[in-house]
Amino acid sequence: MSDFDLVIRNARAVTASDSFDCDIGIRAGRIAQLGLDLAAGKREIDAAGRTVTPGGVDAHCHLDQPMPPPTRTADDFDTGTRSAACGGTTTVIPFAAQQKGQSLRAAVEDYRARAAGKAHIDYAFHLIVSDPTPTVLQEELPALIREGFTSFKIYMTYDDMKLDDGQILDVLDVARQHGALAMVHAENADCIEWLTRRLEAAGRTAPRFHAHARPMLVEREATHRAIALAELVDVPILIVHVSGREAVEQIRWARAHGLNIFAETCPQYLFLTAEDLGIDDSYKGAKCVCSPPPRDRANQQVIWDGLNDGLFTVFSSDHAPFKFDAPEGKKPNGEEVSFRHIPNGIPGLETRMALLWSEGVLAGRMTPHRFVELTATGPAKAYGLHPRKGTIAIGADADLVIWDEREFVLRNEQLHHEVDYTPYEGMRLKAWPGITLSRGEVVWDGQFHARPGEGQLLACGKPSLLPQRRAD
Amino acid sequence: MSDFDLVIRNARAVTASDSFDCDIGIRAGRIAQLGLDLAAGKREIDAAGRTVTPGGVDAHCHLDQPMPPPTRTADDFDTGTRSAACGGTTTVIPFAAQQKGQSLRAAVEDYRARAAGKAHIDYAFHLIVSDPTPTVLQEELPALIREGFTSFKIYMTYDDMKLDDGQILDVLDVARQHGALAMVHAENADCIEWLTRRLEAAGRTAPRFHAHARPMLVEREATHRAIALAELVDVPILIVHVSGREAVEQIRWARAHGLNIFAETCPQYLFLTAEDLGIDDSYKGAKCVCSPPPRDRANQQVIWDGLNDGLFTVFSSDHAPFKFDAPEGKKPNGEEVSFRHIPNGIPGLETRMALLWSEGVLAGRMTPHRFVELTATGPAKAYGLHPRKGTIAIGADADLVIWDEREFVLRNEQLHHEVDYTPYEGMRLKAWPGITLSRGEVVWDGQFHARPGEGQLLACGKPSLLPQRRAD
Amino acid sequence: MSDFDLVIRNARAVTASDSFDCDIGIRAGRIAQLGLDLAAGKREIDAAGRTVTPGGVDAHCHLDQPMPPPTRTADDFDTGTRSAACGGTTTVIPFAAQQKGQSLRAAVEDYRARAAGKAHIDYAFHLIVSDPTPTVLQEELPALIREGFTSFKIYMTYDDMKLDDGQILDVLDVARQHGALAMVHAENADCIEWLTRRLEAAGRTAPRFHAHARPMLVEREATHRAIALAELVDVPILIVHVSGREAVEQIRWARAHGLNIFAETCPQYLFLTAEDLGIDDSYKGAKCVCSPPPRDRANQQVIWDGLNDGLFTVFSSDHAPFKFDAPEGKKPNGEEVSFRHIPNGIPGLETRMALLWSEGVLAGRMTPHRFVELTATGPAKAYGLHPRKGTIAIGADADLVIWDEREFVLRNEQLHHEVDYTPYEGMRLKAWPGITLSRGEVVWDGQFHARPGEGQLLACGKPSLLPQRRAD
Amino acid sequence: MSDFDLVIRNARAVTASDSFDCDIGIRAGRIAQLGLDLAAGKREIDAAGRTVTPGGVDAHCHLDQPMPPPTRTADDFDTGTRSAACGGTTTVIPFAAQQKGQSLRAAVEDYRARAAGKAHIDYAFHLIVSDPTPTVLQEELPALIREGFTSFKIYMTYDDMKLDDGQILDVLDVARQHGALAMVHAENADCIEWLTRRLEAAGRTAPRFHAHARPMLVEREATHRAIALAELVDVPILIVHVSGREAVEQIRWARAHGLNIFAETCPQYLFLTAEDLGIDDSYKGAKCVCSPPPRDRANQQVIWDGLNDGLFTVFSSDHAPFKFDAPEGKKPNGEEVSFRHIPNGIPGLETRMALLWSEGVLAGRMTPHRFVELTATGPAKAYGLHPRKGTIAIGADADLVIWDEREFVLRNEQLHHEVDYTPYEGMRLKAWPGITLSRGEVVWDGQFHARPGEGQLLACGKPSLLPQRRAD
Repeated sequence: MSDFDLVIRNARAVTASDSFDCDIGIRAGRIAQLGLDLAAGKREIDAAGRTVTPGGVDAHCHLDQPMPPPTRTADDFDTGTRSAACGGTTTVIPFAAQQKGQSLRAAVEDYRARAAGKAHIDYAFHLIVSDPTPTVLQEELPALIREGFTSFKIYMTYDDMKLDDGQILDVLDVARQHGALAMVHAENADCIEWLTRRLEAAGRTAPRFHAHARPMLVEREATHRAIALAELVDVPILIVHVSGREAVEQIRWARAHGLNIFAETCPQYLFLTAEDLGIDDSYKGAKCVCSPPPRDRANQQVIWDGLNDGLFTVFSSDHAPFKFDAPEGKKPNGEEVSFRHIPNGIPGLETRMALLWSEGVLAGRMTPHRFVELTATGPAKAYGLHPRKGTIAIGADADLVIWDEREFVLRNEQLHHEVDYTPYEGMRLKAWPGITLSRGEVVWDGQFHARPGEGQLLACGKPSLLPQRRAD
Repeated sequence: MSDFDLVIRNARAVTASDSFDCDIGIRAGRIAQLGLDLAAGKREIDAAGRTVTPGGVDAHCHLDQPMPPPTRTADDFDTGTRSAACGGTTTVIPFAAQQKGQSLRAAVEDYRARAAGKAHIDYAFHLIVSDPTPTVLQEELPALIREGFTSFKIYMTYDDMKLDDGQILDVLDVARQHGALAMVHAENADCIEWLTRRLEAAGRTAPRFHAHARPMLVEREATHRAIALAELVDVPILIVHVSGREAVEQIRWARAHGLNIFAETCPQYLFLTAEDLGIDDSYKGAKCVCSPPPRDRANQQVIWDGLNDGLFTVFSSDHAPFKFDAPEGKKPNGEEVSFRHIPNGIPGLETRMALLWSEGVLAGRMTPHRFVELTATGPAKAYGLHPRKGTIAIGADADLVIWDEREFVLRNEQLHHEVDYTPYEGMRLKAWPGITLSRGEVVWDGQFHARPGEGQLLACGKPSLLPQRRAD
Repeated sequence: MSDFDLVIRNARAVTASDSFDCDIGIRAGRIAQLGLDLAAGKREIDAAGRTVTPGGVDAHCHLDQPMPPPTRTADDFDTGTRSAACGGTTTVIPFAAQQKGQSLRAAVEDYRARAAGKAHIDYAFHLIVSDPTPTVLQEELPALIREGFTSFKIYMTYDDMKLDDGQILDVLDVARQHGALAMVHAENADCIEWLTRRLEAAGRTAPRFHAHARPMLVEREATHRAIALAELVDVPILIVHVSGREAVEQIRWARAHGLNIFAETCPQYLFLTAEDLGIDDSYKGAKCVCSPPPRDRANQQVIWDGLNDGLFTVFSSDHAPFKFDAPEGKKPNGEEVSFRHIPNGIPGLETRMALLWSEGVLAGRMTPHRFVELTATGPAKAYGLHPRKGTIAIGADADLVIWDEREFVLRNEQLHHEVDYTPYEGMRLKAWPGITLSRGEVVWDGQFHARPGEGQLLACGKPSLLPQRRAD
Repeated sequence: MSDFDLVIRNARAVTASDSFDCDIGIRAGRIAQLGLDLAAGKREIDAAGRTVTPGGVDAHCHLDQPMPPPTRTADDFDTGTRSAACGGTTTVIPFAAQQKGQSLRAAVEDYRARAAGKAHIDYAFHLIVSDPTPTVLQEELPALIREGFTSFKIYMTYDDMKLDDGQILDVLDVARQHGALAMVHAENADCIEWLTRRLEAAGRTAPRFHAHARPMLVEREATHRAIALAELVDVPILIVHVSGREAVEQIRWARAHGLNIFAETCPQYLFLTAEDLGIDDSYKGAKCVCSPPPRDRANQQVIWDGLNDGLFTVFSSDHAPFKFDAPEGKKPNGEEVSFRHIPNGIPGLETRMALLWSEGVLAGRMTPHRFVELTATGPAKAYGLHPRKGTIAIGADADLVIWDEREFVLRNEQLHHEVDYTPYEGMRLKAWPGITLSRGEVVWDGQFHARPGEGQLLACGKPSLLPQRRAD
């Protein structure tokens, strides 16, 4: 009688700290044994010496998120998690976004309904707190944290979501009291609005002026401010989608002063520059409009250095799936167009893992351990999903990627999202996930194996990036 | 028939990235399986849920090292590795020190002979290059690197060992060409000599003036210089025994500029201060004389922050076993005494692991993962011993510690080195290794199980802290 | 026939760059000649080798400024300029403060009326812009700048005056277009409010908690933000009343990056500490409540270093004359007291010059040239009054101080303001102005010589701290 | 009967702090009166509203300095001071250089003899200490300081002059005890030698490789080290010829930490780049070989920022007059050529003032006050010549420049040095000194008025950049 549901033979397993050759024995969706010469499984897969990493945890993506009309996210939990799985990601953490005036609980329930029966892989929710009323702060948030929604995002920009400094302090204080982790989108809203108006007044409305409206100091200022607010409350925070030198320097300063400031970056800050928003007034640049905008090559190097040095804990896609060529899409329409109206964000859920494995690990810029830490273990620890998610270890979910190394040219038609482009069209990559397993089931092996509703909503624990002081 | 030589049951295994409950199956001295409900072993140990970490790799210790008479190291490979094993360390890397005028090969052969037949646990050698002749640079060093001596230490102080900047560049260049790692003792020799003379001229010769002769700027300057030399050659280096803020700031500056500068610190910079060298002219302070000297409480916090933040890769003892009350010892003797003549260094091989586990992990200052990284995985990677040493993974040597948590007061009489004191006498600790295994054999379980000569000289590979650029 | 209205003989004249022995010939209120053996004057004063400096320019003081009731400033233009003159200051620049809803022009006219017929020495006005309506930005401010009101203050805190970031950008843009200089009170309002509420909720309402409600990071954050906003607009600004290390570091950072960020500090950051706000709950500490609060001794040294190093351009009093023991005063009254209700600010117009001469120059901490630059030439240049004010040079107004060196203990009863205390009561000083001349007339020689209405409103030119690019 | 020997009418006088319109009355070579409508002079010059600045103090130039053969300085005290005067400089401070083995006293006497009877303007000597024997340290240096030789230069590179760190500490300690000022040439000798050998071995011997042999980190390291040594001794130092960002950052760091580190820069770091050493292997680049080498445009801006910000105290020429096309000159000769053998240094005594006035003040990059401070008052204060030299003030020597503003193209044939080129050939300048006065005598007014021997050796006092602590 067979011991395991599945055995992966001859794996070159890689974790955030180790690499080792072994078989992986899986039982009931979890890793039950690692070792040489394991007993037989009901099913077996021969990795044939290929690298096996933990499945990716994409801790920053937007799926079926309510937006101010006409904007809409092209991917929902079905297509989004399909795309993720085909790209080697086995856990996604999109956002249950509170509308101003809405109860946070209602936002979560609405989002739970949007996900129900659709997801092909497991998922958790970050909360977006846009209206921190006393009820939210004193009742809803604490209760939701207890129920496993242990992270929330704070916006310092976007009119419909931004909090003022006093509200941020209030929300951070809840995070501190209840052991949750706040993520901060750090850009100065007033600066952006001021610059945008002047650019518009000067007729500078093409997509590329999006980058002019959000220079690095806009991000640097908000990053410094977020750090100061966290220092005042004495609570860790995580700065999302850091784009370049000026924000990086603020975070380094904070860490050198003993503050627990964590940081995330995204593929667009490694592989795009502001020039991808256009060097003339062409509409095409709208495809790469995201916030903060990509910077330049020197800043790409700053981000690579931060990834290697340990400055960054999380590498996410910030997948914001807006079509280009659609009435509600990024392509400017009608008479009065301005970069202001281009939905902010680019797709990236499916390409995140392969881009970093190919250009990071295989190009010799990053160890495979660091790859795993950034794409899986780090986000799982940051958001309370470790050790169930994000690693290859006894008892962990059998969320795994078996990598195929082969050179190919990336085309959007190969991808499984509902967006009509990828910003990385035409890039030459060196690898792609050959097989993706979600809790021991193959969801991608060159073909997508749909299993809608099999993906579960995960209850998150406390972040585990920091030591836990034991009761004395 | 039994599958394993040894099975450790019910372990709470901890690696640099993960914690998981499992059995550990050991065969031929190596970890063969990890998992739940492993098959039986010829022997079994019930960890009963206790934490099991990789055995420590102490990458900085001085055993049976030739010294200018009358100074002598109290511990040799027998007593030193005995002490290490009883404290949870399963690999030591002492120094094969070239004397000026001596061939490096001869130094290695001499040191190999000193180790032969004595060691109870495995060991490797760092080289100390004190006379980088053309033969050393062009022949001996490259050959020794190929043979597995892939790290060497450069001294910027001590008359009998220090190199000038040009010599350092030459040695670093060999490291670069052959993929070795240079460790640097960074203190400015001229400053120390200048201050020492003035202190002596002023009659300030008590042990505590040792710290006056080596203020932080002496370390800061040499650290900056070492970084500049490494930057010029374009090679990673590792700064050993970093003591406090000023050196830390230089290293942070370097890393923020994309330089691969690694760093080590030691227990004395967490648990001692300059006051331990005496607040009056008592001889007792000689016990804590080491270089760089311990600083103050604020600097201890800087070191804790650096341990948590990822600034430090290695936590070593810098075990320098000089007796206090002996004719050749640290206690000043005779008529004309000066701190100048006190042998520099303190014992710490046996206490390193328990101090950091107790005051770091159990006191809530550090995650257990970070403990493993600093005491085992990091040094093993830095010096090319990973993945054989420094982790719990399939195929790794079964070098393990099973921890006992119990409060006790540390006394030198409990220790197994040949030194007549410990600087940490009287400290209240929360844990100590209950069992230490070296390649699957119990060397310590409350009793020391001598196995002289069973410890092997390890050939070291290339450092694996950095990505390997593949041939294009 | 006499050549000069007044000749000062045997002066040891000191400017921001030079010291020289000479006679000073004054005609029509201006310095007409400097030299040896000048012709006779209608009047003569023998300085007898004593030091003669330019009269002080106090560029930050609050006189007869409308306040939310019941708070009121104890000094008006009569008593304020009296006090200034007796302390060696010959020009004051208080604030014409716009109320929200008020036109800026009306604020200036109101303030002009408050000054009329009262001032004993010359004065100029800074504007306070608290309501930057389109009319203010596009019409009033440009017109007022043209009329000689070339500096304005922006508050980042205080509910009745603070601007949001977008408003600050608008106001800075006017400064840039019209060549004016914006001064910034940099403290984060939300942080202060948040901390204040929590302190009050905890019953921590004594004066000393004022300092707890405004820790250095509150000032650091706003300083960084003000710098970022100025960088965005590309305009110089001047940060007022910098209190210590954290703000200083931000300003140093900015200057090292080529930004024109100027800075002011005040006596309270050299001579007071937070302990002067009380070490228990005594009301007495209310006397020293000002914003930002004084810090500690280490921060005092940081300020001394910045004064010497050239970081600071202006040394002002920030004279905010609130009585202690009065119904509207700083002494807490009634049942529900909180530090929140203590008027912010301390008196210092009369003591500023003597404190810095005594503790700076005579104590060997500062050259006399630097003293002149900080107390007179620097502020005169910053606010467009140089070379008429702030120096000893041909054509400059004969605003002079002849210094008496003598040790004495400072008592409030010696001072000429209307405030019932000085925070420096009991300090031992080494010098005091022996004679103060305003445009060649003696206003103080141990006796105050009232000349109400002789002080004139000065039209300010453009700041002259920076080079003027000539038209090409 | 006439009052003054000379009156300059209608001057627009500029000092380091002020500008004013006045007549300047001169008697016995000194400024006796400044004012409007001065009495008549025996001679009169009508400045007609032109700018009058203090004559320049060039505190770093090499005249008739003994060099290792065949190198020789082309200018002696005759031609050097002629060139200086024609360019608006009225005081030079060249170097009395001790040879190793020579007594310092002998070096001074030798240099005194070289100057005797030749100089057309006043001069002082810096000492170069290359052999700090106990006699030098304990006897000669203290005696020479007492006699008015209050500054000395320390080399960290050049085999025939460099000191090791211990020697530097000894020399700095003498500076501290006797109130002298040490100047430091900060480049790491070993790094330069190491790089030079490798470049030569690779056949990279053209002039441009001089810059490759001295990258910025070589200067940065030595600057950091010099700062550390000065910090240890607790004495101010002045870093000479700072070339760009990396050294500037070290100096900013030091000043921000309260250390008295002063700095000098030179025209070559504003107006040349490494490309001027050649972009191919042409010999012509030898003309611009100096140490440290010029950097790039971004570094030029860093230097401009430092000049404006107050980081630099002194702007010197570092005039090192080596001919290009001469057997002993900079043009490489013979078979075995290498940049190593090109004499280090470029001419600049005559062009220094006009370059900075034209490109600094007239181009709108610098205030005229800052120009005076950098070219005259600052160096005079640094080296104990103020207030006799370096300013326009009562009692100061009448060393003055009346500026002519006119556009012209600079040609070496217009210059009065003995060097056969200027690195600034072809630059379009906006001004040149119209008249230079040395102690009230015209030495240049479009014609050079030789007065050999009229220039006097000045005894220097203590540096006056820092406050003097009075005896308590």
